[in-house]
Amino acid sequence: MEPDINYCCSCAAPVSVKIPAGDSLPRHVCDACGAVHYRNPRLVVGALPVWEDRVLLCRRAIEPRLGYWTLPAGFMENQETVSEAAVRETQEEACAHIELGEMYTMISVPHINQVHVIYRARLLDLDFAPGEESLEVELFEEAAIPWQEIAFHTVAMTLRHFFHDRARDSFMLHTEAIAPPR
Amino acid sequence: MEPDINYCCSCAAPVSVKIPAGDSLPRHVCDACGAVHYRNPRLVVGALPVWEDRVLLCRRAIEPRLGYWTLPAGFMENQETVSEAAVRETQEEACAHIELGEMYTMISVPHINQVHVIYRARLLDLDFAPGEESLEVELFEEAAIPWQEIAFHTVAMTLRHFFHDRARDSFMLHTEAIAPPR
Repeated sequence: MEPDINYCCSCAAPVSVKIPAGDSLPRHVCDACGAVHYRNPRLVVGALPVWEDRVLLCRRAIEPRLGYWTLPAGFMENQETVSEAAVRETQEEACAHIELGEMYTMISVPHINQVHVIYRARLLDLDFAPGEESLEVELFEEAAIPWQEIAFHTVAMTLRHFFHDRARDSFMLHTEAIAPPR
Repeated sequence: MEPDINYCCSCAAPVSVKIPAGDSLPRHVCDACGAVHYRNPRLVVGALPVWEDRVLLCRRAIEPRLGYWTLPAGFMENQETVSEAAVRETQEEACAHIELGEMYTMISVPHINQVHVIYRARLLDLDFAPGEESLEVELFEEAAIPWQEIAFHTVAMTLRHFFHDRARDSFMLHTEAIAPPR
């Protein structure tokens, strides 16, 4: 959760919600210095690492969805590229070494202001281990995927696309969006 | 430019730069309420609208790069999907109606903490006009593209890919990154 915007982070004066000149949406604008405090969607970037017929999943050691399985992924940082973020998150969460393939899914999640991007990747060796944010890291065949214990809808969608495309030996980029849960 | 983070936007207390527990990078953390103020890359999303053999460009009415030509694009907003952002920006900057095609370029620009995403699009009619942020909107054949007056490097890259791929009648997703200007 992002902190509320009640004060200007630059000068500490109170902010008002109003539409700045030349803009079309209400923003938090500082009453004193005039700074506009925008909020924009964040990129969550990760990888789908593959070893022979198995895919690598991490069991989460942190909230949200502690104890559930996910692909290695996390918030993209300033000063890095999208592909650097995918490699870094895989290293951090699974201590795994990958060769990044093509971008595979880009799924907008507008109700939480996120865009999830997952790359296909080749696991380079079996020298992986749980990072600080993971309880376990394991390789799963399709039949063993713990579908009832997948942490996030976008991860399940990406895995389903992968097994579907792999069966046809035809991978394509999937760009889509998900609606809020009912 | 984003405002500096000197104070907590939630409670107005001063912030310190430190590495929060379980994190690996320094963040702005509130000395009083503990709120962590993350900064992450922003998505700039737009379209490459095509009418027969011509592409639609807008001449910018605002800084940066006032007077230069660009594809319709802008910051993605909270609560929308990536494709909705591309359609909205095209409507706002060129008053143009498009049918969105496939995602075409995704270019990381790490030195300014941005990721630029452009979709191919079909212009549905010739009923376009400059929006508030544009001076002119025009259709250009390849030979007439004002290459010396293109506003942004990522726009020039996208146009070059487009004419190259069109000549071969083979369009593919281009994911890349650009280095800072020297």
